[in-house]
Amino acid sequence: MESKIIINQIIAGWQRQVAQTQGIIEKLSNEQLQQDVAPGRNSGFYLVGHLAAVHENIFKLMDLGEVKHPELMKPFVLKADKNGQEQYDIEFLKTALQEANTTLIEKFQAMEVAEWLSRHTNVSEEDFAKEPHRNKLSIVLSRTIHMAYHTGQLALLVPKA
Amino acid sequence: MESKIIINQIIAGWQRQVAQTQGIIEKLSNEQLQQDVAPGRNSGFYLVGHLAAVHENIFKLMDLGEVKHPELMKPFVLKADKNGQEQYDIEFLKTALQEANTTLIEKFQAMEVAEWLSRHTNVSEEDFAKEPHRNKLSIVLSRTIHMAYHTGQLALLVPKA
Repeated sequence: MESKIIINQIIAGWQRQVAQTQGIIEKLSNEQLQQDVAPGRNSGFYLVGHLAAVHENIFKLMDLGEVKHPELMKPFVLKADKNGQEQYDIEFLKTALQEANTTLIEKFQAMEVAEWLSRHTNVSEEDFAKEPHRNKLSIVLSRTIHMAYHTGQLALLVPKA
Repeated sequence: MESKIIINQIIAGWQRQVAQTQGIIEKLSNEQLQQDVAPGRNSGFYLVGHLAAVHENIFKLMDLGEVKHPELMKPFVLKADKNGQEQYDIEFLKTALQEANTTLIEKFQAMEVAEWLSRHTNVSEEDFAKEPHRNKLSIVLSRTIHMAYHTGQLALLVPKA
């Protein structure tokens, strides 16, 4: 019961962050998203692709089904490679992110406490026995924080009122 | 037991975020902190003052003791007022933030599960009976996410390697 309340708070935090992030992306035109968040730094385009790749990868880490576009990981996460990124268009990346976010929240809402406290796929059974905090909940917590970090940057592209 | 594991994960998330944020601030000279994170946006100076005020206010929200500099709230949170901000120097704000962070983690580590699940001071007993998620844990969760958002912005001041 207590655990359920706390887990729901964590999911609600994820949901609020998704709403803020999507709200900012929707406010920006595709031209605005092509701009760098600060001189010489990442573009909105890159950050949307980065979030899409990271959020799709949650399906794998939490064993929630197939990653739709596993090929996004290399250019947008593992190795920031401009040529690899430029194969994608911003509409494609926005849709990938939005679809991942929509499906993830449905999956999260259907999960039981025991499942949340089970290991994620990046930790072995042996290590998990010693480190029970490396559970599925830790993925949502860390990815919420990660999303907030980059949302603070995306917000810099929104013209001042 | 389950609740304790989850609460510890949330505290660990706060602690990791504090470490990242402090690490970035320490990397920056006072001159770098005076710069805006992007043209026409908040300065590092402002963001350090904003985080100091918000983190000091956690003492009040969680009933953990006196707020050391309650006068920071007005210029750095409630009403962004340049004149009010310029009374403070960056060293003062950095120290205020660091001291708040250090004391908060000590307080967090001493709290029991029941205390984490008790209401924060911004919600009445009546409302809390209907909305048990408005507990002290929700403050740490939301302030971790808030800190990450602004840390993504502060990181833009660190010169590229």
